[in-house]
Amino acid sequence: MSEWRKDLIVDRWVIIAPDRAGRPDEFRQQRPVAPSLAGGKCPFCEGNERSTPGEIAAVRERGSAADAPGWRVRVVPNKYPAVVEGAELAHPPGKPFECRPGAGVHEVIIESPRHRTLAGQLTAEEMSDVVGMYCQRLGQHRRLSRFACGLLFKNVGQAAGASLAHLHSQLVVLPMVPAVLQAELDGARRFANATGECVFCRMLQLERQADERVVEVTPGFVALCPYASRFAMETWIVPRQHSQHVDLLSTEAQVELAELLQRTLTKLERVLADPTYNMIVHTAPFDTNPVEHYHWHIEILPRQATAAGFEWGSGYHINTVSPEAAARLLQSAEIHHSPRQVDPI
Amino acid sequence: MSEWRKDLIVDRWVIIAPDRAGRPDEFRQQRPVAPSLAGGKCPFCEGNERSTPGEIAAVRERGSAADAPGWRVRVVPNKYPAVVEGAELAHPPGKPFECRPGAGVHEVIIESPRHRTLAGQLTAEEMSDVVGMYCQRLGQHRRLSRFACGLLFKNVGQAAGASLAHLHSQLVVLPMVPAVLQAELDGARRFANATGECVFCRMLQLERQADERVVEVTPGFVALCPYASRFAMETWIVPRQHSQHVDLLSTEAQVELAELLQRTLTKLERVLADPTYNMIVHTAPFDTNPVEHYHWHIEILPRQATAAGFEWGSGYHINTVSPEAAARLLQSAEIHHSPRQVDPI
Repeated sequence: MSEWRKDLIVDRWVIIAPDRAGRPDEFRQQRPVAPSLAGGKCPFCEGNERSTPGEIAAVRERGSAADAPGWRVRVVPNKYPAVVEGAELAHPPGKPFECRPGAGVHEVIIESPRHRTLAGQLTAEEMSDVVGMYCQRLGQHRRLSRFACGLLFKNVGQAAGASLAHLHSQLVVLPMVPAVLQAELDGARRFANATGECVFCRMLQLERQADERVVEVTPGFVALCPYASRFAMETWIVPRQHSQHVDLLSTEAQVELAELLQRTLTKLERVLADPTYNMIVHTAPFDTNPVEHYHWHIEILPRQATAAGFEWGSGYHINTVSPEAAARLLQSAEIHHSPRQVDPI
Repeated sequence: MSEWRKDLIVDRWVIIAPDRAGRPDEFRQQRPVAPSLAGGKCPFCEGNERSTPGEIAAVRERGSAADAPGWRVRVVPNKYPAVVEGAELAHPPGKPFECRPGAGVHEVIIESPRHRTLAGQLTAEEMSDVVGMYCQRLGQHRRLSRFACGLLFKNVGQAAGASLAHLHSQLVVLPMVPAVLQAELDGARRFANATGECVFCRMLQLERQADERVVEVTPGFVALCPYASRFAMETWIVPRQHSQHVDLLSTEAQVELAELLQRTLTKLERVLADPTYNMIVHTAPFDTNPVEHYHWHIEILPRQATAAGFEWGSGYHINTVSPEAAARLLQSAEIHHSPRQVDPI
């Protein structure tokens, strides 16, 4: 039996339809495996720094030179940017057609000097460096940028849209607040106007009471499968303290977040048949308009199913794994090592 | 150089970024090919009628029995429905969580008794039967249904979410107007209020003047690549006569539409590296609220790229093929046969 569920924050319905999981799939078992480009060819591996544009920032050994080995996390401009600083229009088409230059910034955050393709292969220290760099880059653009907001995301696996397997995140700085974030800002404002509360804070309270969809609670964060999960095994990480901007986390909180993120992604990678997902950091726009009702968080969207005609035609999602079942699977997923002690392959 | 373009009808921006088309892709060339289930195993092939639930409607040889060979188009309930008639909720969770039974209707329209996987393998007569069935099923639900609207779509290829390769369309009858259609209704109303015109009629006029994105014009229809195409090679078919409901087409217009659809899909299948796409029929809701400003149309969304963290995180799309280039490619795509004379393999 399927049911329609509405997201708490935005006006978005999903169909939870576990019975559909059993349908035949001629294409199953045919997911391609990424060839390893390690051993000289991967542009993101240590030693191949010249394959990318010059670095913008890095976590480096003291004394090592920019664009040379010796780094742990490295940030470079995207060689094939979707948006560029200072873009200008060639041929404005005139009303009612509307267009703007493809202005913005597009950076790549390379998460390890070694050819790592899954979060479970990173150490907690490596993940801490990555989260620290997320905060550094977002904070810098928020303080200095003339643009509207920063969208930080990661694509892991082909079905999630990755074109290179070596773990990397992307930061796109946008000239306008995107539709997805605007819908969340609007939803959070509606809820705050109606109840005087933050919808995310209220959700955490309700989810901890219900205890059906919570994966893990740490002093500062909750990992949970949201009530109206669009994707099978969808998982969010939400800070327990109400805050708009991820980049304002203390160094200690960054480390706690990194460890939780590492555990959560490792569990997902073990539970998923194909460890393929998008991870998206939802954080408030740069501008100083009041957004006190907003609450930053991270959404991990596994891509086991393919959005098809139904999803693109309706805007609704069909999810064949209920978030209650997803949370149970993740709770019982064993991590065979403490991430701090891992000896990475 | 990339540019932001806004859709005429809905508040939706895309980034047209042809330079990104050249980026490396470790996963390219690894697209799996569907194995043929023909020869006894495909549940949609003639002779295997018992593999599906009993038929709801069919175009059949005179005197042939239901659920037996002798059909040209066959409609059956989806064996793994996303929504079902008369669904009830097991455990309503209570406010502020919102849910509803997964109510609705989910039908499959099997487009040929033979194991055909591409539109180019259908004859124009077969496509006419299919379009006729689209109109019959949508019309029947519109007149008799207690639901809100019908979403008719087709998934071709694995990357487009198909689970069976044998050509089929799906009709999902929904208890509420989905977000995508509502945004179009709102956009069309806004434009009509501001200008007194239908935005789709105006678009056809402007596109025929500009003549940069039109693929083909017939007496009743225009095939074009829309100004703010989200997907590379995105193509719409729009009726020249203002009309809300596709199912009100005359039989002659259905045949004309089928022939244009067949030509357009065949061209797309020739031009695309991987003939993978979603086709979505956008038609007005069933209810009698005035929607005079709406204009039904068909959207064909090729799925060469995978929506990734950027798309899911922002709601924006990045398209690496400009619609002007797409229209030129389709205009010059040769169809080596007249669809009416094809000797199908």
